[in-house]
Amino acid sequence: MYIVIVYDVSVERVNRVKKFLRQHLHWVQNSVFEGEVTMAEFERIKAGLRELINEDEDSVVIYKLRSQPFREVIGMEKNPMEDIM
Amino acid sequence: MYIVIVYDVSVERVNRVKKFLRQHLHWVQNSVFEGEVTMAEFERIKAGLRELINEDEDSVVIYKLRSQPFREVIGMEKNPMEDIM
Repeated sequence: MYIVIVYDVSVERVNRVKKFLRQHLHWVQNSVFEGEVTMAEFERIKAGLRELINEDEDSVVIYKLRSQPFREVIGMEKNPMEDIM
Repeated sequence: MYIVIVYDVSVERVNRVKKFLRQHLHWVQNSVFEGEVTMAEFERIKAGLRELINEDEDSVVIYKLRSQPFREVIGMEKNPMEDIM
């Protein structure tokens, strides 16, 4: 499964969230990560996020895709995918 | 076609980008929009973004999907999709 995660997390918690996601996924930009994960990894990521965020204030949206989606970039690519492929 | 747009745009330009995308797509969170678009709308959105951003400093990533993807939300949903469906 391929996931894209976008988050809107308060500044007090955002660095821990970023550090955690970096262990599992590819950082795309700002508050966006993506990557191929197994079902077990997906569950671990969700459990980890639930521990790190405040569910009453923060928001994380996870898009679940079958495979890496087509993408177009306008402007600069902050962290090119080619580097990891 | 269904698109998800994430952007990382300098603070001087971000409000104009948000205002422009709101005319075409559903605001999800922070700097994320998504929605169903025709090919013509997709081209208009890209042309509009190219005019609004500074391509040397800002970054916009557009994920192109066949249909609205499955999604999971952890924490609060800032702008529920159900409102427009």
